[in-house]
Amino acid sequence: MANWFEVNDDESKVVISSRIRLARNLIDYPFPNKMKEEESKEVLQKAKDVIVNGNTVLKDDFKYYKMQDCDEVEKGMLLEKHLISREIMENSNSGVLIKNDESVSVMINEEDHIRIQTIFPGFKLNEAFDLADKIDDVLEEQLDYAYDERLGFLTSCPTNIGTGLRASIMVHLPALVELGYIDGVLKAANQLGLAVRGIYGENSKALGNIFQISNQLTLGRKEQEIIGNIMGIAKQIIDKELEARDVLKKEKGIRFEDRVYRSLGILKSSRIIDTKEAMNHLSNVKLGIEMNFIEEISTRIIDKLMIDIQPIHQISMYEAKNVVERDINRASHIRKTIELNTKNKE
Amino acid sequence: MANWFEVNDDESKVVISSRIRLARNLIDYPFPNKMKEEESKEVLQKAKDVIVNGNTVLKDDFKYYKMQDCDEVEKGMLLEKHLISREIMENSNSGVLIKNDESVSVMINEEDHIRIQTIFPGFKLNEAFDLADKIDDVLEEQLDYAYDERLGFLTSCPTNIGTGLRASIMVHLPALVELGYIDGVLKAANQLGLAVRGIYGENSKALGNIFQISNQLTLGRKEQEIIGNIMGIAKQIIDKELEARDVLKKEKGIRFEDRVYRSLGILKSSRIIDTKEAMNHLSNVKLGIEMNFIEEISTRIIDKLMIDIQPIHQISMYEAKNVVERDINRASHIRKTIELNTKNKE
Repeated sequence: MANWFEVNDDESKVVISSRIRLARNLIDYPFPNKMKEEESKEVLQKAKDVIVNGNTVLKDDFKYYKMQDCDEVEKGMLLEKHLISREIMENSNSGVLIKNDESVSVMINEEDHIRIQTIFPGFKLNEAFDLADKIDDVLEEQLDYAYDERLGFLTSCPTNIGTGLRASIMVHLPALVELGYIDGVLKAANQLGLAVRGIYGENSKALGNIFQISNQLTLGRKEQEIIGNIMGIAKQIIDKELEARDVLKKEKGIRFEDRVYRSLGILKSSRIIDTKEAMNHLSNVKLGIEMNFIEEISTRIIDKLMIDIQPIHQISMYEAKNVVERDINRASHIRKTIELNTKNKE
Repeated sequence: MANWFEVNDDESKVVISSRIRLARNLIDYPFPNKMKEEESKEVLQKAKDVIVNGNTVLKDDFKYYKMQDCDEVEKGMLLEKHLISREIMENSNSGVLIKNDESVSVMINEEDHIRIQTIFPGFKLNEAFDLADKIDDVLEEQLDYAYDERLGFLTSCPTNIGTGLRASIMVHLPALVELGYIDGVLKAANQLGLAVRGIYGENSKALGNIFQISNQLTLGRKEQEIIGNIMGIAKQIIDKELEARDVLKKEKGIRFEDRVYRSLGILKSSRIIDTKEAMNHLSNVKLGIEMNFIEEISTRIIDKLMIDIQPIHQISMYEAKNVVERDINRASHIRKTIELNTKNKE
């Protein structure tokens, strides 16, 4: 995640990243679930060629992965980094183009022929959309998109018809979870047309208190309206989370501070730890940094650890033979990463 | 505790300290609980003079504390350091002479007129007895002890008659506690004539897994026999504890190592901690050092912390106004002490 940098405004204390996904299909082919073998091979080749063998600015920055040629570990790692989806892993004749800095991935023959995804650190939905839009323009120059004047872009699943746009932000909501407000917030967001789900684990039981908020409607609105709507609601959720943090700080005082430091102490010293416990402590430490209790380490390192410690990353990094070994390697990886990235106190 | 040094043999991985207490009374006075005001003042003066104003080697090394002149905090601290008993705190006209290095205390007008106590780090009962014996000789030259040819030294409580000797060792038995063997061990020791009790808290619920093993019989045996007996049984308990540690290491493996390091991590990072939790983590860390997992800090520091964090020491050190403040100060004291005394890893 070479493009991740540190941001210090209030919104970035809650929003980890902003993501845009555009669904596109080619006019001359059935949707992927209806394609014949030969057709899917053609779509894969065509879409890939535009970027990899084309004459555009994108040429040098992307690496191509054919799903069939990736082993389970490679696929799992791309999944845990949110660069591919579960769907694409199961399709034969599917592939993904990934930008070197991992800010862009273009999936071919997922649920749709083409899915463009951009991801930015912090609360940067507009920036993420601008980049996705540019890549979309490059592709559109070479490919004939399935487009209906009245409906807009046609997609495999009707829920994506229109803009084909899914805008989402990944947010850290530990205080809303702790104070028990999270279910109410999720419900309200839902009623306003947004989908909210835990990234790791499910909904209010989300591991690491990390949630994804995204639009459900793609039809009948302009892209900028959809993004404006989600940003407006997201701002309210961010404010609620920040208020809840103040409440926690005021109500729990030293016990709150104690907890974030203990979590850091445990991460710095444990010898075996499972994903769930590690995510919980990482969430505490992240909160401790965001609330200026902890200064010796940056949120960037904690965000990266949250991905590193996912099961497949762990297997890949250390070739663990079983769950116990994986949990031992996880503890070791966390200890070393924190030690290497701890700033001197003085 | 300037005389505390580090010892690395196996016995000293279990035995924290060895203590000898000799009970003595003056022939011309009733026992303390029967003395008149005037008599108790005379006894206090006489006994004190032998050491403080006498012409012996002891003169310069001892400091005198009159109990009436000590406030509750001073008394509490001496008690938590095991330099005085609860009984002496309640007697008027009582006092204590304490050697500068805190290896010897002579209580005057406790349950008996005179109680000589020596304390050595490690498994050093013979050495502790030799020192107590020497101090006893100095006192006996100047004072007339109540002594019966047939019974031996006469004491206020019949359980001390004879040698007036109480030999005790303070032991750390975390593995026997964890494996559930401690009750059996305590019972067996009891049947062999020894008393075993938790130092902080009671018996098998002992805080910090620290126990005191001492003789119950004082009559009908020579001092060396009593000491030999307790040392023999203690050696068996030490062996059982060391065996239990091997079992724990073998059975729990990495989870055992994990626990001792997590305890160190928590002690290094907590912001509020009560005595019970702190004693538990200190016991784990002590075990971690004794089993050569942890090398960055010495048991001497952990042993000292176990006394420092007792309630009255905490109040004295930081003048805490309430329990919460005391628990905050305790956490801070532990953090700073460990930080100051951590050896460089490389």
